[in-house]
Amino acid sequence: MPNVTDADQSAMLRELLAKLEEFVRERDWEQFHTPKNLAVSISIEAAELLEHFQWVVEGSPESANGYPLEAIAEEAADVYLYLLLFCKGLGIDLNSAALEKLRKNADRYPVRESYGKSTKYTKFPTDGAM
Amino acid sequence: MPNVTDADQSAMLRELLAKLEEFVRERDWEQFHTPKNLAVSISIEAAELLEHFQWVVEGSPESANGYPLEAIAEEAADVYLYLLLFCKGLGIDLNSAALEKLRKNADRYPVRESYGKSTKYTKFPTDGAM
Amino acid sequence: MPNVTDADQSAMLRELLAKLEEFVRERDWEQFHTPKNLAVSISIEAAELLEHFQWVVEGSPESANGYPLEAIAEEAADVYLYLLLFCKGLGIDLNSAALEKLRKNADRYPVRESYGKSTKYTKFPTDGAM
Amino acid sequence: MPNVTDADQSAMLRELLAKLEEFVRERDWEQFHTPKNLAVSISIEAAELLEHFQWVVEGSPESANGYPLEAIAEEAADVYLYLLLFCKGLGIDLNSAALEKLRKNADRYPVRESYGKSTKYTKFPTDGAM
Repeated sequence: MPNVTDADQSAMLRELLAKLEEFVRERDWEQFHTPKNLAVSISIEAAELLEHFQWVVEGSPESANGYPLEAIAEEAADVYLYLLLFCKGLGIDLNSAALEKLRKNADRYPVRESYGKSTKYTKFPTDGAM
Repeated sequence: MPNVTDADQSAMLRELLAKLEEFVRERDWEQFHTPKNLAVSISIEAAELLEHFQWVVEGSPESANGYPLEAIAEEAADVYLYLLLFCKGLGIDLNSAALEKLRKNADRYPVRESYGKSTKYTKFPTDGAM
Repeated sequence: MPNVTDADQSAMLRELLAKLEEFVRERDWEQFHTPKNLAVSISIEAAELLEHFQWVVEGSPESANGYPLEAIAEEAADVYLYLLLFCKGLGIDLNSAALEKLRKNADRYPVRESYGKSTKYTKFPTDGAM
Repeated sequence: MPNVTDADQSAMLRELLAKLEEFVRERDWEQFHTPKNLAVSISIEAAELLEHFQWVVEGSPESANGYPLEAIAEEAADVYLYLLLFCKGLGIDLNSAALEKLRKNADRYPVRESYGKSTKYTKFPTDGAM
């Protein structure tokens, strides 16, 4: 994230969370936002994001040509917004959880076994994904 | 996110992004991380998150009893980590994109039409989701 | 499937497969239908099906009121059509595979351990889903 | 589906549906099988199917080498089994719905506009998927 300072990021996340909660509260939508419904919503938005790549052949001129970035950013935002609501509802701090998971992945995927391989850790010593 | 100051959040996100990139680079995994593959990965992790709620009846004693929060936080972290990699690859700033989308949703879902209703904006004036 | 005879079902599946292949061939779409792209498509259509239930509270008047069955049937059909194309491409007979899996599930989920419980077999003796 | 006669297919689907219902009833699992939970389950299984292709580069030696067909057939079967339960619960005949949808797609995607193009019909005249 070039050209965005730490202070900017921090202010932005704080603003985002405040606006998101206000948006939901103003519409009386907390009633719909059970953990299950939000998990369902994350999956639905993830699929809408994926739809932009449904027929893409990576490496082809098409994929080099550029994607519809504005529409894609909106779908990525939808996944993120529902993820933030989900985590807030269950008291999960997303950045802390991600740091923790990254530490766990570093243990699961030692560089020596994983270098250049997309093998899932459960299938070592022949495979390595997150 | 109580008890986490702005400065903490900011430092955490910076640390997270740096560690995530290092994790990927050390394993020579950039080659697998095309936008399409990362979008696929977000969907897969979103479904693993959803699996924790597959048979949950909201409002039931089970759902009140508490969810396996540690496992759930890990799956939420996986969605987030892939989402960060995806956005980084396409030059999307997730917090900015989310703020932007929230503004758009506020227009799409006027309080008067959306209050207490889960109707999708495309089906107004009878329905209202994000 | 009441009022549909075996012979009807059989003729219908045969007609369906023939028409599906013709539909794809006439449009020169085989080139897009790699196993990966079809697996992606199944996930996307499954999410579109799920969207109809995103905010549904089961047991509520809304859910009793009836769902938009025509739209839902179309999404279910989309999942099925892509699943048929996927299986055809990999030489998988879906009905045989399903019978086989059902036998495996019967072993994984003994009635005594699974009765009335939605626990995944990997978590026995306390959990039981497919 | 070579070497499988119509009568075989028909008998197989009938056997499959009967066994599936018996499997569910014996375990008293109808209570979990609401339309919403089954739609959730279809999405989860679709993602497990997709996981087999997460890092596949189509056209690469890996993808030519062959996929783990047995494991893949099991995941395809899981999607199908939940889809059958879902349709049964809502009174949808899957083969009829698919034939109907195929007719609709043929209208949406005229050969002249769709030939060799993966453009979604909503974006004609420049795009064409199911």
